[in-house]
Amino acid sequence: MATAGQVIRCKAAVAWEFNQPLVIEEVEVAPPQEKEIRIKIVATGVCQSDLYFLSKCSNQTAFPVVFGHEAAGVVESIGPGVTEFQPGDTVIPLFMPQCRECRLCKSPKTNLCVNGCPLVSLFERSRISCRGRKLLQFLGTSSFSEFTVVKEMSVAKIDPAAPLDRVCLIGCAICTGYGAAVNTAKVEAGSSCAVFGLGAVGLAAVMGCKAAGASRIIAIDINPDKFEKAKVLGATDVVNPNDHSRPIQQLLQEMTGGGVDFSFECIGNVEVMRSALESCAPGWGVSVIAGWTDMENFSAPPIHLMTGRKWTGTLFGGFKGKDGVAQMVKAYLDRKLMVDEFITHNLRLEQINEAVELMKNSRWYDPNSCSD
Amino acid sequence: MATAGQVIRCKAAVAWEFNQPLVIEEVEVAPPQEKEIRIKIVATGVCQSDLYFLSKCSNQTAFPVVFGHEAAGVVESIGPGVTEFQPGDTVIPLFMPQCRECRLCKSPKTNLCVNGCPLVSLFERSRISCRGRKLLQFLGTSSFSEFTVVKEMSVAKIDPAAPLDRVCLIGCAICTGYGAAVNTAKVEAGSSCAVFGLGAVGLAAVMGCKAAGASRIIAIDINPDKFEKAKVLGATDVVNPNDHSRPIQQLLQEMTGGGVDFSFECIGNVEVMRSALESCAPGWGVSVIAGWTDMENFSAPPIHLMTGRKWTGTLFGGFKGKDGVAQMVKAYLDRKLMVDEFITHNLRLEQINEAVELMKNSRWYDPNSCSD
Repeated sequence: MATAGQVIRCKAAVAWEFNQPLVIEEVEVAPPQEKEIRIKIVATGVCQSDLYFLSKCSNQTAFPVVFGHEAAGVVESIGPGVTEFQPGDTVIPLFMPQCRECRLCKSPKTNLCVNGCPLVSLFERSRISCRGRKLLQFLGTSSFSEFTVVKEMSVAKIDPAAPLDRVCLIGCAICTGYGAAVNTAKVEAGSSCAVFGLGAVGLAAVMGCKAAGASRIIAIDINPDKFEKAKVLGATDVVNPNDHSRPIQQLLQEMTGGGVDFSFECIGNVEVMRSALESCAPGWGVSVIAGWTDMENFSAPPIHLMTGRKWTGTLFGGFKGKDGVAQMVKAYLDRKLMVDEFITHNLRLEQINEAVELMKNSRWYDPNSCSD
Repeated sequence: MATAGQVIRCKAAVAWEFNQPLVIEEVEVAPPQEKEIRIKIVATGVCQSDLYFLSKCSNQTAFPVVFGHEAAGVVESIGPGVTEFQPGDTVIPLFMPQCRECRLCKSPKTNLCVNGCPLVSLFERSRISCRGRKLLQFLGTSSFSEFTVVKEMSVAKIDPAAPLDRVCLIGCAICTGYGAAVNTAKVEAGSSCAVFGLGAVGLAAVMGCKAAGASRIIAIDINPDKFEKAKVLGATDVVNPNDHSRPIQQLLQEMTGGGVDFSFECIGNVEVMRSALESCAPGWGVSVIAGWTDMENFSAPPIHLMTGRKWTGTLFGGFKGKDGVAQMVKAYLDRKLMVDEFITHNLRLEQINEAVELMKNSRWYDPNSCSD
């Protein structure tokens, strides 16, 4: 493109300070360097993790930064040494890179890569600057910008037929929840499952449980507005803990005659993590943590595990970034995966604080897309 | 035998009160009732769990009680309805029964039984009385008595060739540790393992790791006297955390280039449980809790699990009681399992408080057998 090798001036939503509204600014996006790619972002979701680091927990956050990590776009230009991409390719940036060369990438047991989140800093130097200041890159992606520069290892090439304002959600929430069920928990046909929190991750977990053949999928949220969509995605039962006087784990034990086979925490709340564990069947129940928090530790009595439960967790649903995203986009195009159902709003970049507020006002977790 | 149907007068070590020495008393052991068996105890180990409920934590303990649950003996008489045993059979009592009929016993995924520990009370009514008072049964076994009455579902028949003063240890510590490695963790050939605490359970875990083909087995204890035996049982490395200024989990990460594949907590200390988890490799590490405590909860940051570690635990090493004990005794007789190496002392029942003191004076955990 004509802009290759040039600094691009465009708009981005800049987070200047903790817990302050994002500011739409004119920014300069430098050309990609060695093994980097500059992407024109076509659509980006707003994920609870963006809000978490913007306004909930500043433990690891540095400012000024460009948030956003659940996006889709088109390659504008490539840096030296890039072999996998060409300008015009449709892509999804990856917050979990896949370098294909490290000991982790070479293992079939994990989707971690030694070069990426969470093994290296969540905040790194970006190619974006504003008012003379270098902005920080969030999760290697920084998609709240019309253009962003990402490492080649952190980009998945996808089918050009994919509608980018839909498949952007495959870049985070949908893979995380769906993969939590099919990859991490390895949900079994005929099993019983409980999903705590019906934001995009939880809804995707419901969909994953159904795809894996679970015969009972109990969807749990304190916001009953989420139940209709959960049923569309495969929930056989919906439960609002506020409708019951006894603890949710006790209710689930009773509903299932001893506990569910698989449970999923899709919120990022350590108390709910424990409830999800306690909802599992002694002997074999598996509980997966898919919701993020680093403000508190979870805790539980050792006997909960000694009776044979397994506690684990997931990042990006155990999908290796490049391979998993391409596969999930294909599944969507083949009508084997629902994505459209996750879209609740379509807003312009200028409306991003509105998207943030929509999500904050959701009680547990809410998927909102902010597509340009 | 001539005593069948009669009350037997014999000796037992009675725990009258919390944190007081056991008292050798003459007791009356009533005949077995429906589906019960009266066993002449030939040998019993003293396990850390006996001491835990006697003198460390009284949360669940009731008095007066006869402790002891790691034993071997001979069937003296059987109650009505008993079909699996005859007087003279050599047996090991089980603190984890195997009724073979409940939904848990019928599942290949667990060794829990709905009729036993820990799903029912750890302290129940026994057939033993002393000075006109009914004594309580501990873990369904109460082996600190010359005779005890146990449910048919809580007894494993073993090869009569087995030396009872050795194989009694198969009734708890050896199955727990060995099974933690081979059944619960499913240690893989060529893998790296770390075992925290080199009491009988930890030493058995070392042996299990070796049997499973682990290529590196790091045995950890703050008492270096344990290291020699750990090496005999298969440890390739021994580590005393007190010899190092950095945390043990950091040391193990360094020693193994990223963390062990499997770790085992064999102490019952929630801080060590967390260290064992943190010693595991992100991506796939499995940490198994085999040491008992119900005084405190473990805790950890969610990211430790979200990076793909799995935390689980074990009771009796995942062995179904009757099947597992018979199989392990056979392995010992076939010279495929070491047991003799676990015996540190042989004492008479009258010396049981000496055995208790020997164990207490061990820094983390100590196996002591008290055979009659």
